[in-house]
Amino acid sequence: MLNEHYCRAVIFEQARQPQEIRQIELPLLSSGELLIRNEYVTLCRSDINTFTGKRTEKTPTILGHEIVGRIASFGPDTPRTDSAGTSLDIGDRLTWSIFASDPESEHSRRGIPQKGASLFKYGHEQLSESNTLHGGLAEYTILRKNTALFRLKNSVPLPVAALINCSVATVAGSIRLAGELSGKTVLVSGAGMLGLIACAMAREAGASQVLALDIHAERLDSAIKFGATAGFKVTADGESLKDILHRNGQSNPIQIVLEYSGSAEAMESTLTVLDIGGTAVWVGATYPQRSLQIDAEKIVRNLHIIKGLHNYNQDDLAKAVHFISENHDRYPFTEIIYDGFNLETVNEAFDYAINQNPHRVGLRINND
Amino acid sequence: MLNEHYCRAVIFEQARQPQEIRQIELPLLSSGELLIRNEYVTLCRSDINTFTGKRTEKTPTILGHEIVGRIASFGPDTPRTDSAGTSLDIGDRLTWSIFASDPESEHSRRGIPQKGASLFKYGHEQLSESNTLHGGLAEYTILRKNTALFRLKNSVPLPVAALINCSVATVAGSIRLAGELSGKTVLVSGAGMLGLIACAMAREAGASQVLALDIHAERLDSAIKFGATAGFKVTADGESLKDILHRNGQSNPIQIVLEYSGSAEAMESTLTVLDIGGTAVWVGATYPQRSLQIDAEKIVRNLHIIKGLHNYNQDDLAKAVHFISENHDRYPFTEIIYDGFNLETVNEAFDYAINQNPHRVGLRINND
Repeated sequence: MLNEHYCRAVIFEQARQPQEIRQIELPLLSSGELLIRNEYVTLCRSDINTFTGKRTEKTPTILGHEIVGRIASFGPDTPRTDSAGTSLDIGDRLTWSIFASDPESEHSRRGIPQKGASLFKYGHEQLSESNTLHGGLAEYTILRKNTALFRLKNSVPLPVAALINCSVATVAGSIRLAGELSGKTVLVSGAGMLGLIACAMAREAGASQVLALDIHAERLDSAIKFGATAGFKVTADGESLKDILHRNGQSNPIQIVLEYSGSAEAMESTLTVLDIGGTAVWVGATYPQRSLQIDAEKIVRNLHIIKGLHNYNQDDLAKAVHFISENHDRYPFTEIIYDGFNLETVNEAFDYAINQNPHRVGLRINND
Repeated sequence: MLNEHYCRAVIFEQARQPQEIRQIELPLLSSGELLIRNEYVTLCRSDINTFTGKRTEKTPTILGHEIVGRIASFGPDTPRTDSAGTSLDIGDRLTWSIFASDPESEHSRRGIPQKGASLFKYGHEQLSESNTLHGGLAEYTILRKNTALFRLKNSVPLPVAALINCSVATVAGSIRLAGELSGKTVLVSGAGMLGLIACAMAREAGASQVLALDIHAERLDSAIKFGATAGFKVTADGESLKDILHRNGQSNPIQIVLEYSGSAEAMESTLTVLDIGGTAVWVGATYPQRSLQIDAEKIVRNLHIIKGLHNYNQDDLAKAVHFISENHDRYPFTEIIYDGFNLETVNEAFDYAINQNPHRVGLRINND
């Protein structure tokens, strides 16, 4: 019986302190729950930010929410279909929403289930007796009722599959908010993991030009491989973004800004180059920082639209699954994920992520 | 022949200096043009701001763009139908878009004709030999090709009819940007002319609560007459908007903010009370002011949407015509328009507007 078994989980207690593996009892599943045998976790920027103390979560917790795994068992009365109606069985590979919430609550009904009532976020919750295996850095995860689920084909490489339920779904949400991209010039601010995916998704959505912006030249090289039509290096010497674009022969009006860096300077400067009627979607600013300085008259006279996005909804996750299923081998995803760790080397994985700053660091679980 | 005639026009040369009436020659109409015999002008806040020097226009000019008049003559080949396809004849009363622009230009095709190529704005252009009677403070206005036109019923009182093509159409645009209002709590910031119209339009659009915000108690009284369900006086004593609402028993989440005051403090404070997923439409900030201080993390985590609006498009004007045609006697419009001036007393009209600050000051033209 599963409830007699234990599994290993990595416990996060305190910023910048080594994480330890502990044995956690596998509880009996409740109605609607699923037990997942985790296969792969990629460390999201917010995992790193929690680890370094840039953002705060209640501890102890199990980090890791960018994750993929296979169904180990079904709770009593748990439906045997995913959110698309596809049948599910033991051993099927799944991706799932990083949250569960009450689908009947006000925000859920307005299309924002990620802020719905009774919100529960995988990899972000304090461990307690009733709430144990919720994070990816463990051998098992228990999925709650009201978690969106999508079965994945086995052909998607594990490191790429792990990206779906955070990076890719969030980018899908931001592109939904940006509206029609066909024929438009899109500026992607921040060529980290989300920015690279956004370059690819914007191209696939028909953007005529995708301009990538970053402070690191090598990230701009990656952006080009992910479909950006041009990359622009931002420097700290005070040259305005308008001048940087102009100096590099970029004079087309920019209709869409997708902002993933979270940098206050980037949010401010990208507004200055946004065309009349343009939309800026802000995604990266998920940590405390200085106030932005915004010229309201320009927002008004230019009919600018600014939209914030945090997490994503079920449609976005479905689009992310579709996008990766169709495009995982059309862009060099596996090149930019450092696939070198497992649960035993979790502390080395965080060190590597902080010191080497690759787009993603991946950990194999139960399959290395 | 009209080209042998002259008409009187009020010329604005310099901020805070008396305006003079001059004789201007009525030119021959070109193809697509219409000559309008003006009937009524209300002084818009931007007319006052130009007069006081708060904003700058090229001079000399003829102010006045919130206006209504009757067709005096058609240019050669000018279509005899309005933008709704209604037939037009000499003597018909018209309202028209405050701008003309190239309908094939990029911004026009994207639904922003008010920023389209070859933009021409009535009441905002420098007078020249080829550009004479474009402002409302004159006996005649020449309407250019690519101006949206709507025939008005004679039953709408002139002072109310004059509001349609600026205040009412702009509010219609802001409500379009706000999206579905049915069942929502709407906060209207600034109970000037636009704010009052917004209260009425939001109620007619099904908003369950319309909360008005102003620094003047008497404007809040007007807001209640225009459909606001509650009014909240903002003071300079530093009490937060959240506290003001709470102290007055207002605890419902606010899904929509419509901001017409243009006050930096109002734009900042209303964001702090906006519900997750809420939309703020900024309209009032059409003059230079200090930078706003915006917390980007809150925009992101709350999935806030901010939309700037300047002027309106043809659909908004059509909605404004419909709204006033249906509702002009359901709200006390005529009570809040000081209907006491004409072209001869134009300087008194501006003085009255500045010193008494009524919602609108009106001037009768050709019919007093």
